[in-house]
Amino acid sequence: MKIAIFGFGAVGRGVAKVLMDRERMSRVLGDYSVVAVADSRGSMVSDSVDLRKALEFKEKTGRLPEGMSVEEIIENVDFDVALELTPTNIETGEPGLTHIKKCLEKGAHVVTSNKGPLVVAYRELERLARKKGVRLMFEATVGGAMPVIKLIRRNLAGNRIESIKGILNGTCNYILSRMEREKLSYRQILAEAKELGIAEANESYDVEGIDSAAKLVILANAVMGMDVKFEDVEVNGITEITPEAFEIALEKGYTIRLIAEVSESELKVGPRLVSLNNPLCVHGTLNAMLIQTDLAGEVFVIGRGAGSVETASAVISDLADIRACSDDL
Amino acid sequence: MKIAIFGFGAVGRGVAKVLMDRERMSRVLGDYSVVAVADSRGSMVSDSVDLRKALEFKEKTGRLPEGMSVEEIIENVDFDVALELTPTNIETGEPGLTHIKKCLEKGAHVVTSNKGPLVVAYRELERLARKKGVRLMFEATVGGAMPVIKLIRRNLAGNRIESIKGILNGTCNYILSRMEREKLSYRQILAEAKELGIAEANESYDVEGIDSAAKLVILANAVMGMDVKFEDVEVNGITEITPEAFEIALEKGYTIRLIAEVSESELKVGPRLVSLNNPLCVHGTLNAMLIQTDLAGEVFVIGRGAGSVETASAVISDLADIRACSDDL
Repeated sequence: MKIAIFGFGAVGRGVAKVLMDRERMSRVLGDYSVVAVADSRGSMVSDSVDLRKALEFKEKTGRLPEGMSVEEIIENVDFDVALELTPTNIETGEPGLTHIKKCLEKGAHVVTSNKGPLVVAYRELERLARKKGVRLMFEATVGGAMPVIKLIRRNLAGNRIESIKGILNGTCNYILSRMEREKLSYRQILAEAKELGIAEANESYDVEGIDSAAKLVILANAVMGMDVKFEDVEVNGITEITPEAFEIALEKGYTIRLIAEVSESELKVGPRLVSLNNPLCVHGTLNAMLIQTDLAGEVFVIGRGAGSVETASAVISDLADIRACSDDL
Repeated sequence: MKIAIFGFGAVGRGVAKVLMDRERMSRVLGDYSVVAVADSRGSMVSDSVDLRKALEFKEKTGRLPEGMSVEEIIENVDFDVALELTPTNIETGEPGLTHIKKCLEKGAHVVTSNKGPLVVAYRELERLARKKGVRLMFEATVGGAMPVIKLIRRNLAGNRIESIKGILNGTCNYILSRMEREKLSYRQILAEAKELGIAEANESYDVEGIDSAAKLVILANAVMGMDVKFEDVEVNGITEITPEAFEIALEKGYTIRLIAEVSESELKVGPRLVSLNNPLCVHGTLNAMLIQTDLAGEVFVIGRGAGSVETASAVISDLADIRACSDDL
């Protein structure tokens, strides 16, 4: 299996680190080599890229060495699977959208952690992959290391998915669970979360519910057979929640969580009261998801929604799935 | 895909009912037909067995019509996948063990809900399947509709599984969660559970921890790469737990659950104190499982551990997996 890695941020570097454990990874991927690694400013291309060198170069200089662009690599380098791990832009989907299209057109499988292209053009990409007889996998886009997409598609194959309800953003959950326990204001906890690197400098993408809504769009389209856009989601964030709201909720045995929910009649993200006994009441940066099905009943899962190596785990599971179901790899 | 069903108890009938929804099932299984259905006393064999008739006959008479035995079907009927759904015997593994061996020898894939053959001879069966180039799938043996085996093998592919800790027996969990809430004695709740059909007439298999231990052996061998036998499990049941024990536990914020746990150094089933805040503290007949991994961190799952249609869901997911990864089906 010849692998090209596009994007060398936290996820790309996490994947590279995991792929360096060749003995372990070859048990699930068979023979493999990384034939290209690229970020927005440079790349390394060879029959077998030295991942340790790539990581060292990136760490020292903040970029990869000058070389072919991603587009040039897609045109000129032979690979079986592209890992599209560039940053998310949910408005244009770029640059991931163009990368994914060109890779699928070329007949390469694609594994992505990039929500943007899927939010913008899931149906189109899915049709293109089917037409070309290749796989488009995106476990890492929703829930990080928490099994979600393949859990529903494979482990619950044959079930009708009636609804999904979940906590899909670890930053919000971290802020809310600290507000619950420490009775501090949203602003105070947010400031601390930024210091700890749990919230980004520009936090709005997370705390306004945009990230959760993007993930919900992916779930709705990919595992519930819907055809919805980001604009179809009713979105509310957590910025207006007060310590007093928590006090009142806790008195009655509830807490507050940012819940994303999809069913035939609903597609929304917003703060909800959650019973303290409800397994959805997870703490810290964890993600959680309740899947209502007709045969299996309720299936509930909790996992780490973010993190470099955790997200790499999801990417590797997609690669392993492609390999398990492709005779030619 | 030509399917033979061996065993027509609750699980076999659940699978038959689900397979009757041809439109839905063909989306995950492709073209399929059931070419044989057999129980211990009879069978129906044809190019496409009328499942409705089979279910009606079984309901009226308690058996299938006189016909070929399972062994005769394996020898004489052409099928791609056998569903081995006969009752569990964890001492001999029979009759499932012989059925599975003969099917694998013949070059057919096997999907089973029968713990016995796997507890007695997992390594042997796994080697045989590999040698013959066919699949041996057994999602339904552990956790019912709760994703377990494929969750670990596929969704967590590439991870090292450090430990698994779970509630794998719904009958015990039902009894313990009622003892927790109602302060009644073990004997009282057991009697009621029997009336409700949640506990069997001979309850010892469940309440003495034997069923949980059998499932733990399957997990240890199949997803943790161990090679252990039933005798290697340290097993304690729930029969000695008193209402007073619950009282003391609850005062300190704990409850009692029957926990099965496996790691490199441990393989045991027994009652444990579980914090009321721990997601493992599930109620009723639910199953739950905490998987500790090195890349994905902790992954936690809850689901329905038993039930006819629920277990059928697990069987169907195995069939779908075989189909997704086999070019010839």
